[in-house]
Amino acid sequence: MYHHIKKLMYTVKVDSPDPRFGNMLLEQFGGANGELAAAMQYSIQGLNCEDPQRKDLLMDIGTEELSHLEVVGTLARMHLKPMKQQQNGAEVDPLIAIAGGGGVSLFNSMGDAWTADYLKITGELDVDLRSNIAAEARAKIVYERLINQCDDPGSKDALQFLMTREITHMKAFTLALESLGKNQFSIGKIEPTPGLVDEYFNDSTGEGDEGEKDATGPWNSGGHWKIVETRELQQGVENLESSGGRKRGKEQEKLRKTA
Amino acid sequence: MYHHIKKLMYTVKVDSPDPRFGNMLLEQFGGANGELAAAMQYSIQGLNCEDPQRKDLLMDIGTEELSHLEVVGTLARMHLKPMKQQQNGAEVDPLIAIAGGGGVSLFNSMGDAWTADYLKITGELDVDLRSNIAAEARAKIVYERLINQCDDPGSKDALQFLMTREITHMKAFTLALESLGKNQFSIGKIEPTPGLVDEYFNDSTGEGDEGEKDATGPWNSGGHWKIVETRELQQGVENLESSGGRKRGKEQEKLRKTA
Amino acid sequence: MYHHIKKLMYTVKVDSPDPRFGNMLLEQFGGANGELAAAMQYSIQGLNCEDPQRKDLLMDIGTEELSHLEVVGTLARMHLKPMKQQQNGAEVDPLIAIAGGGGVSLFNSMGDAWTADYLKITGELDVDLRSNIAAEARAKIVYERLINQCDDPGSKDALQFLMTREITHMKAFTLALESLGKNQFSIGKIEPTPGLVDEYFNDSTGEGDEGEKDATGPWNSGGHWKIVETRELQQGVENLESSGGRKRGKEQEKLRKTA
Amino acid sequence: MYHHIKKLMYTVKVDSPDPRFGNMLLEQFGGANGELAAAMQYSIQGLNCEDPQRKDLLMDIGTEELSHLEVVGTLARMHLKPMKQQQNGAEVDPLIAIAGGGGVSLFNSMGDAWTADYLKITGELDVDLRSNIAAEARAKIVYERLINQCDDPGSKDALQFLMTREITHMKAFTLALESLGKNQFSIGKIEPTPGLVDEYFNDSTGEGDEGEKDATGPWNSGGHWKIVETRELQQGVENLESSGGRKRGKEQEKLRKTA
Amino acid sequence: MYHHIKKLMYTVKVDSPDPRFGNMLLEQFGGANGELAAAMQYSIQGLNCEDPQRKDLLMDIGTEELSHLEVVGTLARMHLKPMKQQQNGAEVDPLIAIAGGGGVSLFNSMGDAWTADYLKITGELDVDLRSNIAAEARAKIVYERLINQCDDPGSKDALQFLMTREITHMKAFTLALESLGKNQFSIGKIEPTPGLVDEYFNDSTGEGDEGEKDATGPWNSGGHWKIVETRELQQGVENLESSGGRKRGKEQEKLRKTA
Amino acid sequence: MYHHIKKLMYTVKVDSPDPRFGNMLLEQFGGANGELAAAMQYSIQGLNCEDPQRKDLLMDIGTEELSHLEVVGTLARMHLKPMKQQQNGAEVDPLIAIAGGGGVSLFNSMGDAWTADYLKITGELDVDLRSNIAAEARAKIVYERLINQCDDPGSKDALQFLMTREITHMKAFTLALESLGKNQFSIGKIEPTPGLVDEYFNDSTGEGDEGEKDATGPWNSGGHWKIVETRELQQGVENLESSGGRKRGKEQEKLRKTA
Repeated sequence: MYHHIKKLMYTVKVDSPDPRFGNMLLEQFGGANGELAAAMQYSIQGLNCEDPQRKDLLMDIGTEELSHLEVVGTLARMHLKPMKQQQNGAEVDPLIAIAGGGGVSLFNSMGDAWTADYLKITGELDVDLRSNIAAEARAKIVYERLINQCDDPGSKDALQFLMTREITHMKAFTLALESLGKNQFSIGKIEPTPGLVDEYFNDSTGEGDEGEKDATGPWNSGGHWKIVETRELQQGVENLESSGGRKRGKEQEKLRKTA
Repeated sequence: MYHHIKKLMYTVKVDSPDPRFGNMLLEQFGGANGELAAAMQYSIQGLNCEDPQRKDLLMDIGTEELSHLEVVGTLARMHLKPMKQQQNGAEVDPLIAIAGGGGVSLFNSMGDAWTADYLKITGELDVDLRSNIAAEARAKIVYERLINQCDDPGSKDALQFLMTREITHMKAFTLALESLGKNQFSIGKIEPTPGLVDEYFNDSTGEGDEGEKDATGPWNSGGHWKIVETRELQQGVENLESSGGRKRGKEQEKLRKTA
Repeated sequence: MYHHIKKLMYTVKVDSPDPRFGNMLLEQFGGANGELAAAMQYSIQGLNCEDPQRKDLLMDIGTEELSHLEVVGTLARMHLKPMKQQQNGAEVDPLIAIAGGGGVSLFNSMGDAWTADYLKITGELDVDLRSNIAAEARAKIVYERLINQCDDPGSKDALQFLMTREITHMKAFTLALESLGKNQFSIGKIEPTPGLVDEYFNDSTGEGDEGEKDATGPWNSGGHWKIVETRELQQGVENLESSGGRKRGKEQEKLRKTA
Repeated sequence: MYHHIKKLMYTVKVDSPDPRFGNMLLEQFGGANGELAAAMQYSIQGLNCEDPQRKDLLMDIGTEELSHLEVVGTLARMHLKPMKQQQNGAEVDPLIAIAGGGGVSLFNSMGDAWTADYLKITGELDVDLRSNIAAEARAKIVYERLINQCDDPGSKDALQFLMTREITHMKAFTLALESLGKNQFSIGKIEPTPGLVDEYFNDSTGEGDEGEKDATGPWNSGGHWKIVETRELQQGVENLESSGGRKRGKEQEKLRKTA
Repeated sequence: MYHHIKKLMYTVKVDSPDPRFGNMLLEQFGGANGELAAAMQYSIQGLNCEDPQRKDLLMDIGTEELSHLEVVGTLARMHLKPMKQQQNGAEVDPLIAIAGGGGVSLFNSMGDAWTADYLKITGELDVDLRSNIAAEARAKIVYERLINQCDDPGSKDALQFLMTREITHMKAFTLALESLGKNQFSIGKIEPTPGLVDEYFNDSTGEGDEGEKDATGPWNSGGHWKIVETRELQQGVENLESSGGRKRGKEQEKLRKTA
Repeated sequence: MYHHIKKLMYTVKVDSPDPRFGNMLLEQFGGANGELAAAMQYSIQGLNCEDPQRKDLLMDIGTEELSHLEVVGTLARMHLKPMKQQQNGAEVDPLIAIAGGGGVSLFNSMGDAWTADYLKITGELDVDLRSNIAAEARAKIVYERLINQCDDPGSKDALQFLMTREITHMKAFTLALESLGKNQFSIGKIEPTPGLVDEYFNDSTGEGDEGEKDATGPWNSGGHWKIVETRELQQGVENLESSGGRKRGKEQEKLRKTA
């Protein structure tokens, strides 16, 4: 059950309303990485969750994001309100000015309606937590960019509050994931095919227009990594085909570096 | 520049075509966590990337996902092809049977057209890598569920191949992120507000219908965590308001546990 | 600020889970007239509202709808949960079964992602209240149809609770509109053109395949109504054109009945 | 069967084309409350309608809205046509200028493609009429705002014509609804639960940042209204739970005011 | 201006209603190649068209498609009407049965809302005519598939009528394009680069799983065609780069066959 | 299987980055007629194609369009990159500037996410080829308009390259269609109804505001064409109805001209 308290989680003050900035703020109201997306992603994961501990976590943060939605919506509205009266306001965002009367609605900064396609919900707790960690990282960087575009001190304060909370949530989700005690690369129950799982396919080759070359790093060399070249991969498949096999064989792998 | 080789990355064999299963497979062809989503997310991140090492990684895996798209599409088509002729096929998925002639198209298992709203691209490399790790975890679990729904050995083999590769990619993205050497919770350049960043807001309270209670875990207790109760939070805001302050104050925090 | 209480607004009990019915229930979770649509429409209207009395009404009901979202989601999940394990579950809704692990997500009964295009928010209070009255009427009829499709007593009880509340809200919005004291047909500030406003254009004519004919009723006869025939309308426009006028003239109106 | 007459329902004249205003006009061409939405909503309701009298009404107005679509499209095109040639035109709306050659297409003022998600069609006549009354009110206010943004006399004339007709339609739908002779709050056939239907849940409480308090009005006091406080509601549910009941009980209601 | 005649363009008779087939029919009501798509594409092209002759053609056919929309909608409704009462109806399409009361709405066979993204409108007459020819070919094949899925004689008759008209329109658009007297491959005003325009890039190479090989045909051999191999293309670009040139050179072309 | 070569198909050079133009360029990156749409349409048609010759053609061109996607994305990014830093950049396109960090993503020039609803795939080879011819014509004209909006020589060069290739593809698809040897107006297997197929319905009549009249041309006169007037069509249907017939009869046709 939800309860609304007639008080913003962070009081908002705007000294100089700027419809252009208000329009940008909508990215965090009805945008892909905005507060409704966060609120819905966590709350619905929580509704589906069967781990009572982490269900509480999901509901706590899901609810906090609803309060953030209210803060960022109020902030955007303060910047957008003049749009109804002024012609230059209507130029900035006719959808808000003409159809919305200068009020906010669930659109992003380009006037795209919010869609649940933004959400990542799988019903697999550790997978959902990974999606949430990434979501918080995205929300943080978007708030940072908004702060960099903003001159109004009151708006900056509110955005700093909201941005900070994303890091809080990112920490909480990370610790909740780690405390599940699962192997970092173990997802679900079916094991990946040994050998194949350590092959790195070098599918982009040659030298780029700005001198880019094939790179190596911990993601494809050292440890168990084996780099497989596209041509060899193709050749290997052909060999296998002609000998009646259906699976990719060991002979098609080519070790390049294992440093 | 791209080059296509007339050979599947994994040869597909279907013994008993099953339109219902073919329809489910579309989830990984044109669905939210499917192969086109992966291919586009990584390739476009790669196009935007200014770190030549990880740009190569993004292009390698983005290209591999295009090859996966071809594999899963071929597999789905083998299961769906009978749809054009048979009436029960048309019942399973009229969109594929009637409008598509039994061929695949960029829809998910419910006939929703693929949309770029599925993608998570921010232009901030470490953030994008986190989105990719989560994306691979989601793709893995979806493949696992498809394998569990499938009776056809040839289809299972191909799905096992594809599922394995998602773990490979998840590893690679994780190692690429770690090798950036950034603090785990440091996103962008603006620092979160100290103190506030360690507050855990207890926004969901009471006892649930099935006995759920407030939970504690590493995500809200121990370390620097301070649990802030909603009521106190509200009260604190009210106090601050009446004393003219605009920011949330220290006095509104209530330490519950710090183990 | 929002607060979540770990207790459903209406306790849900399901005796015999039915994935097909669970799938239908999603229409009120993530569908066009469902609970998220109601919650967002009223809450955002409330955020934009400058009439403190009715702002409170909008926030009260908007918040209640969030609690309904939780109830209907829990109910749907109870019916859908078996989907993950059973193959016939996956046939009912592969999106929920395969991609969602049997949990709910913000889709309607056909697997379409929820979109803010469902919302009607104009920032003009009396107009918004009219949209809300219609929205509640729609939600009521959808719940009634769900009850008619349902055999499970526990599910029927919960749906009866939710259906009743829609009538409550419909009443409240109606009384809030009436208490504004505005003329029923006075919207905004610019007056409609006298005369023209009372013309009823008879744009569909002839006799239908099942004997339909032009009908008269209080909506086009009696009072100030004048029925204008398409042919005359066209003729009138032509006459006006040839005489240099730009506006529609009085002579093109033809009184048919004024009972 | 439809017939097109090569004559606009209202002749359009534009003295000074203004691409920015043309772009705003698209809101009524391909926008959520625009003319295609109206035409399709009423015509398809008419196609489904089994009341021959009101079916005629729906077809009459549905057809008139198609004629309005043509008028507003022609008006928008006159303002947008210069976009193809001029660079500043392309800045206003590259979608129209670059992809559309300066012609109109079914987009709103922000370039979002028209979607049938805008429509409200339930197949329940009195419910559909309520949706139409609200739709006309929205369309009226959008035309009023467009008039307020417009300096061109010819455009203002055409918009005044279109705006007036929305009031005409609003009247007609209202009278058609009233003449059905149904109780104002009786929707469908299943009765709401007595008692519960008169409870007003006070779900938003406290005092707001700008002094907002709980409000009372005809929508929650007087008549049969009983105000139920969230806390009591929660408490009541808890009590019921512990005593084995499943339904909300009378004791959880708290009368606050009944003026 | 539009006028509606209360008579279907083709009288519809259904002997045995079949909700499953009714659901398939929606593909031509609210689907990507359906009648609304056709009506809107041609009518809006007509609204934008400055060639009075072909503008008339576009309006004639655009209007006819509106009449088709009514025919196919009526036919679908006859098949879908039982859905409201019967549970198996609701299984076929809950969106129509539960939310729509068994009436049609602007959805395709999978319940996706119609979107203007289906339309192809460029404001360049000859280009638009090409889009229309293709659109008619698609609509024809979809009607043919529906006929093949249908057992009801009355429905087959109506579909044969509708299917025939698509061929009529395809002819008309083709003749309208040819009578413009433009060179078949001349689009717009800027000439393609000579030489480059006759190069065929062989971007898919090798031998496929089912023995597919590089193919030649009139589309890449004979006439002025030159086949350019990817590897050579790449090599050529590299050579050019190292010699400071920015454009692709003649030396990178390799003639393979010109039969 | 796909392979990526770290070299653009056409090297891109931008002298003066212009975020406004970069924004327009997105129309060909993630827009309705852009490179991803082309790549996916042809590649998936190819995946479904059972004619090995033309399957190769579809894969060749589908792959080339992927390479074009990379070129146009790189070009757009060069123009958009400054957006992250500059406030005027954020005004041009906040979605790219704020959410995307100045990088490209799969949006069109108005910030709409790419959707598979843009694609035309039927699984009927000759129909698909017609869709492709039209798609190439549209892509050509969009590139031409971009060239006309562009001052930067390097950008113009790259756009000329891309524009030229569209004509190449249009030729190839046309020749592939012609070489199928099918009758130009024969689609699928079911024959259209003789007689009816040659009737041209004159559904738009009268004289327009700018003097438009009914037009004749090769699309409705000469050959086998018979022009049928709407009124007569209606009358004929009525006559047939009263005489029990269900099909449209010969007597309802009215020959107007056959030149």
